[in-house]
Amino acid sequence: MAKKIHLTGFMLFAPAPHMIMSWVYPREKIKYQWYEIEYWEHIAKTLERGKFDMFFFADGWAGGTSPIGVRYAIQFPNHDPVSLVAYLAATVKKLAFAVTMSTTFYAPYMLTRKLSTLDHITKGRIGWNIVSSIGAAEAHNFGMDSLPPHDERYDRADEYMEVCYKLWDSWDDDAMMMDMERGIFADPDKIHPLNFKGKWYKVEGPMTVIPSPQRRPYLFQARSSDRGREFAARHSECIFASAIGVAGMREFCEDIAARADRYGRNPKDIKIIWGAQPLVAPSESDARAKMHEIRARIPFEASLALMGGHFGIDLSKVDIDKPVGDIDAPGTKGMLDSYRKANPNVTFREIAKTYLSGSDDNPMVGTPKQVADCMQYLVEEGGGDGFQITPAFYAPDYFDELTDQLVPVIRRRGVLRTEYEGRTLRDYMTL
Amino acid sequence: MAKKIHLTGFMLFAPAPHMIMSWVYPREKIKYQWYEIEYWEHIAKTLERGKFDMFFFADGWAGGTSPIGVRYAIQFPNHDPVSLVAYLAATVKKLAFAVTMSTTFYAPYMLTRKLSTLDHITKGRIGWNIVSSIGAAEAHNFGMDSLPPHDERYDRADEYMEVCYKLWDSWDDDAMMMDMERGIFADPDKIHPLNFKGKWYKVEGPMTVIPSPQRRPYLFQARSSDRGREFAARHSECIFASAIGVAGMREFCEDIAARADRYGRNPKDIKIIWGAQPLVAPSESDARAKMHEIRARIPFEASLALMGGHFGIDLSKVDIDKPVGDIDAPGTKGMLDSYRKANPNVTFREIAKTYLSGSDDNPMVGTPKQVADCMQYLVEEGGGDGFQITPAFYAPDYFDELTDQLVPVIRRRGVLRTEYEGRTLRDYMTL
Repeated sequence: MAKKIHLTGFMLFAPAPHMIMSWVYPREKIKYQWYEIEYWEHIAKTLERGKFDMFFFADGWAGGTSPIGVRYAIQFPNHDPVSLVAYLAATVKKLAFAVTMSTTFYAPYMLTRKLSTLDHITKGRIGWNIVSSIGAAEAHNFGMDSLPPHDERYDRADEYMEVCYKLWDSWDDDAMMMDMERGIFADPDKIHPLNFKGKWYKVEGPMTVIPSPQRRPYLFQARSSDRGREFAARHSECIFASAIGVAGMREFCEDIAARADRYGRNPKDIKIIWGAQPLVAPSESDARAKMHEIRARIPFEASLALMGGHFGIDLSKVDIDKPVGDIDAPGTKGMLDSYRKANPNVTFREIAKTYLSGSDDNPMVGTPKQVADCMQYLVEEGGGDGFQITPAFYAPDYFDELTDQLVPVIRRRGVLRTEYEGRTLRDYMTL
Repeated sequence: MAKKIHLTGFMLFAPAPHMIMSWVYPREKIKYQWYEIEYWEHIAKTLERGKFDMFFFADGWAGGTSPIGVRYAIQFPNHDPVSLVAYLAATVKKLAFAVTMSTTFYAPYMLTRKLSTLDHITKGRIGWNIVSSIGAAEAHNFGMDSLPPHDERYDRADEYMEVCYKLWDSWDDDAMMMDMERGIFADPDKIHPLNFKGKWYKVEGPMTVIPSPQRRPYLFQARSSDRGREFAARHSECIFASAIGVAGMREFCEDIAARADRYGRNPKDIKIIWGAQPLVAPSESDARAKMHEIRARIPFEASLALMGGHFGIDLSKVDIDKPVGDIDAPGTKGMLDSYRKANPNVTFREIAKTYLSGSDDNPMVGTPKQVADCMQYLVEEGGGDGFQITPAFYAPDYFDELTDQLVPVIRRRGVLRTEYEGRTLRDYMTL
């Protein structure tokens, strides 16, 4: 039997969710602006129509101080996705959601309470993308001079997770009685304070939220550094990964499997979804023409700025014509490592030219059949469980095109669901 | 012309929002449980049908460590209201919402971003009930040993508000251009970092949310201590107050007006809504019978526990048969002062007997005509702008009864809106 494919939709609550200038769009075709709730409702309904597992929201806590970032709307502005997913959950009854929340800026008690409440409200359709935050600019909005060093952030995050698990488990299954005849709401002996005192966190507890449909949200992680992979292998139920080529995918899957094994986890319990930006059209040349048209409107300086943000490096301060393998940049993120590993001789200038807008040999640009072939090939040869679609192109119509043109082709091959099975996000990802 | 009356609905996202044991209800009549979203959607739709201004949510960050609190569900459990209002805003298109968020536990950058996002999502239907938090138990869930002293909390809150205002004002009106022809999203010169460095807060900014329909949420405050009133007179657009009798109401209004005047504000710009628990039935005796039936199911120890929570005093440690005027209890909250002022000879035992379940001479228990008369009398003689209805009784049917029986009677007198005017919560409260 062919391997099943999961499809998920990725966005930021922002004018240009992933690709620069995606807010630039023929005026006459614009029904709703990115800051209007109808825009998001439209995408949620489209993803549900395509039976996507979920609508995933990245997030960050800074931006807007660099003139280039403001001018081109590079990951700025960026509204809070937590309320957005709560609103959208009222407008679609099957599609699930995942939301990024930072262990650095949310106290664990606040985060667990918010996620458990969301899990109740959505009836189990919620996931948490665990991040420990990366930019000093974010710290500056929270009264801190800087963030803890990278590896310490993960040590803190490990302890943070311990607190979260204890909070989520602080009610026994039968603690809530709601015994109306005897007037007993809950059994005090079955609700347990934590009195947690760790190296970084001190939390009394118990949770003030009753156990929710999933009890804990479905857990995501999206880092690719060594320490990040270790964290993911220990805690994640699903990893949002990027790898270059089938060899890179396979290496990633094997590495995660080996790490999971060391934590006594079955590697099959950790799903992997790959970032992808498919672009479909009735013919391959139409698709490529569309890609070139989109790429043409991206100023080079904007591309560099976004890439620098993703890599964790200020590209205005390095020689962008030097090979990436020669750049000494401590504190950069795992994404840069993938490029270094794939080809140490490539320069930042070369990467930036087509960054996120699709290189000429991008196999995910073509007819629905070509893209479906590519997706099937990648999960069969490279591994993993599906694709997190980052709209590298215009929105919201982009998701309509995928749902209307690409999804039926994949579905006919029997590798994509025709109906939602189960009720929760965890069900969708594991049943 | 008779004075207009505003009606608002008050809840906690909890099994017994205000009155103890309101989760105990004839099983056969229960359509939804308090933890199911349909329960809240039902209330929101009912309030919108009654043209209430808003659905107001109190909140707290602790609970569940006292066996009595757990057994009777006294302000515990308590789910997060922020996501709840976002969800509900998708189900009603006119009703507004107000949500309690603590200046102690939310960093100002997080709070402003969340509220501005909610303001976008709800299209301007959001208010913020400003609290600085009151219980040490809350602090213990956030790694703190105790909260700052009462007055210092307000000094911190003043500085906190200064940060919020600066964040909400960090974009000029014309900063966002969305110039699609020239590819310019926003003008960097019109978006201003704060670089705020105060005594307690340090925030770089700017805001990562574009100016929202109301730009800042409609601001509420609900404290009645001296320092709390001062804070309210300086910042609030609406005060949720409790006062005992017409004389107490008048004193409160005059005091707020005098303080507002000192801050150069027009006292008319500060609305006052009074906590009220009306109970209606076709005849007065039916209404009183219903009240007695409700009161009969409230255990005395539970009543004491809730009252102690509201007053900020552990009543298991004081002689409840002593007059309240004789109790030396530093750090108690303003609510106790109201009782002391109204009658220093009353004991805690006497207050607890009918606490929140209605005393025998409660004029808000009766026919719709009697209750409407009482409401009109109170705002005309005592002052203020309307009533925040705390469901002292069963929910959600309680709000149906008010909307179906009481609201039409008040409306016929021309003192309650027949349609929503304007679009935002601020419009509703001021037009």
